[in-house]
Amino acid sequence: VSFDDVTALQQRAAGLFTAEISPDWTIADKPNGGYLLAMLGRAAGLVGLHPDVIAASAHYLTTPEPGPVTIEVEVLRSGRSASQLRTSLQQDGRSCVQALLTTSRLDADSTAYWDRGVPAPGSLPMADCIRIPDRTPTGLSVAIMRQVDLRIEPGCLGFADGRPSGRGELYGWLALPDGANFDPCSLLYAIDAFPPATFEIEATGWVPTLELTGYVRALPAPGPVRILQRAQLIEARRVDEACFVWDVTGRLVAQASQLAGIKLG
Amino acid sequence: VSFDDVTALQQRAAGLFTAEISPDWTIADKPNGGYLLAMLGRAAGLVGLHPDVIAASAHYLTTPEPGPVTIEVEVLRSGRSASQLRTSLQQDGRSCVQALLTTSRLDADSTAYWDRGVPAPGSLPMADCIRIPDRTPTGLSVAIMRQVDLRIEPGCLGFADGRPSGRGELYGWLALPDGANFDPCSLLYAIDAFPPATFEIEATGWVPTLELTGYVRALPAPGPVRILQRAQLIEARRVDEACFVWDVTGRLVAQASQLAGIKLG
Repeated sequence: VSFDDVTALQQRAAGLFTAEISPDWTIADKPNGGYLLAMLGRAAGLVGLHPDVIAASAHYLTTPEPGPVTIEVEVLRSGRSASQLRTSLQQDGRSCVQALLTTSRLDADSTAYWDRGVPAPGSLPMADCIRIPDRTPTGLSVAIMRQVDLRIEPGCLGFADGRPSGRGELYGWLALPDGANFDPCSLLYAIDAFPPATFEIEATGWVPTLELTGYVRALPAPGPVRILQRAQLIEARRVDEACFVWDVTGRLVAQASQLAGIKLG
Repeated sequence: VSFDDVTALQQRAAGLFTAEISPDWTIADKPNGGYLLAMLGRAAGLVGLHPDVIAASAHYLTTPEPGPVTIEVEVLRSGRSASQLRTSLQQDGRSCVQALLTTSRLDADSTAYWDRGVPAPGSLPMADCIRIPDRTPTGLSVAIMRQVDLRIEPGCLGFADGRPSGRGELYGWLALPDGANFDPCSLLYAIDAFPPATFEIEATGWVPTLELTGYVRALPAPGPVRILQRAQLIEARRVDEACFVWDVTGRLVAQASQLAGIKLG
């Protein structure tokens, strides 16, 4: 099933949509948070005057089940070059995700004016990276790994053998089903697609995202994307992670930070 | 005038406050974006069940003038360990800033469980850093610099002489009026207090914040805070910046990212 299909929206009224969370885009039966944000991004692109999400900030209230949801979008401001919108995803009358988004129009011909250059730690081609299995070591189903092709470089796969490197970072590649090209909406999934970078520090259970902010900086070239997911600080049972996404040409196309809960610290 | 005074709120109804934007906390007569977010954080701490902001995501719609504003707060979810809230700042019926916030209770005794360690580029004590003047080279008033004590290390002050280093980062110290201690609310100001890190790339006019997300990770020790503000990518007239805030003991107490407009790229 394509990413477009699992994020399809039916418009019910001005600023009101219904959608269906796919049971296939889940980890232990819970939908991925970036997948939910991509749905909100798609709705924002339809309601505002501008098609491309460039900034999205989501707060996760409660995890919806696979199945029908309602998405509401309110335009906060429509400018010449950008629209600003408030969105929410609800299920059975409960608000599950709230997000503020900015949309604009990204130009396929833009180039970086100045780039600090994040030291991309990996260098292997996708074919030399290891695909993540669709089941956790404890036997939970990671159904989403049967949909996307997510591969991690062998150098940061210590956690798979119970020997995390302690570096707290994961890097590798992500491709959508059938090798579909990424767009600003699916990049909102990409920024939350990787396993928690904390797996390379210490094994824990679920690391639920509390807040996720992503910036889409450019339209990606066709093909898979390279991702770096990096933990910064674990304290008081919370961790922040940074994420960088490059297209196959090595261009930085998305960046994100998230705060998540973790049973450490 | 103390930071508490310029962020004071008057409650008018459940979840409804009025406040006064100080003309002294402005740059070229525009209030600082982190100062406005601190007001929203204070309102969220009063309305929710938890006192300390730990995550805040703000989208800036239009810049309010100094003077009276209205702040609305809606509780989205109240949990045992955290509250999630939606807030907005309005002036003359126009929404100026919208933010989603998470509040919790920070424990003064918590310690970092794991810290990647951001390479703090500076090392000079505050007394050896240079205070930012209260007027731009083009003669605009930076009134806020008469309120706070913001000092930058000489090594990243090339921009002050028209010779930016090209490194796109600024580091130094920040103290509140009368040396008041920082708390989670005033840390929301600290994450946006520094000049744009792009000043150390190329001189431009105003670099207006479009989106600002901050995480407060710990209660800071009494005293000033050390700040690193760092640009990552300038493309299509937008720049993202990361910010790190440490207390005087060297503990990482806040982190942020922002997307801003810039007349480059």
